[in-house]
Amino acid sequence: MSNILPVLMGSVKDVLHSINYGMYVVSSKKGDKINGQVVNTVFQITPVPVTIATSINKDNLTHEFINSSGVFTVSILSKDAPFKLIGLFGFRSGRDVDKFSQVDYGIGDNGAPYLREHAVAYLEAKVIKKEELFTHTIFIGEVIGGKMLTGGEPMTYDYYHNDIKGKTPKNAATYSGGGL
Amino acid sequence: MSNILPVLMGSVKDVLHSINYGMYVVSSKKGDKINGQVVNTVFQITPVPVTIATSINKDNLTHEFINSSGVFTVSILSKDAPFKLIGLFGFRSGRDVDKFSQVDYGIGDNGAPYLREHAVAYLEAKVIKKEELFTHTIFIGEVIGGKMLTGGEPMTYDYYHNDIKGKTPKNAATYSGGGL
Repeated sequence: MSNILPVLMGSVKDVLHSINYGMYVVSSKKGDKINGQVVNTVFQITPVPVTIATSINKDNLTHEFINSSGVFTVSILSKDAPFKLIGLFGFRSGRDVDKFSQVDYGIGDNGAPYLREHAVAYLEAKVIKKEELFTHTIFIGEVIGGKMLTGGEPMTYDYYHNDIKGKTPKNAATYSGGGL
Repeated sequence: MSNILPVLMGSVKDVLHSINYGMYVVSSKKGDKINGQVVNTVFQITPVPVTIATSINKDNLTHEFINSSGVFTVSILSKDAPFKLIGLFGFRSGRDVDKFSQVDYGIGDNGAPYLREHAVAYLEAKVIKKEELFTHTIFIGEVIGGKMLTGGEPMTYDYYHNDIKGKTPKNAATYSGGGL
């Protein structure tokens, strides 16, 4: 049915913007290396056992790490997270920079890192299923732990777009985007 | 790892509440019957082609309809959606009541219904994959259409919990819940 889509794309794009997301750093490990990236799609699938899912681009280093270790951790960004942090985890690649060396972080029971700054809370998961879909993989994880950190209000994707990205200095464009 | 979870459950529950969701009516059809239910997990998986996913309890009539027809439609609820509408689609079963007979709706190109009241927009999808996970199935659909309707602000799950459910009259508890 893909051939129908181009015609509808304009209005569909508007509709897609009406879907509500949060802002998260999804992290993992490979051997003794750790990495993470900004993701807006994290969601609970079942209540018992508690399972969550996230969609990660196959080109990303975090994708490689989750595939390698079978674990991932979700740090839920708080509303006060500065663009600098989002830029580091969202617009840089872990192939070029050791992201976690620039922030305060801890290591969870699954061995993956979580943010200790600007994170409301974190969840640790172990991958139990994955589903490849074109450019992305949906990793489904059983939640094996998690803790409240700073608490407070989680950042929404809307808030990021309207309030934070709107305030982005022009030179932030040097974060060339894409390579999460 | 499920044996670890009970100990952590209290804090994990708090963390799960920090995940950000919207409020949607996911609908489908079976033969000449139509039905839908409130869902908070709808999210985009890939941009090209545009795919979305939703998680539906296997016991629900909507689950049976999506399995049967291979299509689903997502109506994105607006912030002004009254509790009456959410109660109808969220706390009643389509086995007991013809939900769409009580609202203004249209039929999309995929044959499934969409709300024409209190809906910012809708998306039509055709199932291309599904993944069973314990009590739920994740239906992954390719978006084949969609339109803006009333526009305006989409309702968030947070808003529903804090502002609408908070105002629910006690007798709404007669909506005995569960059977979506």
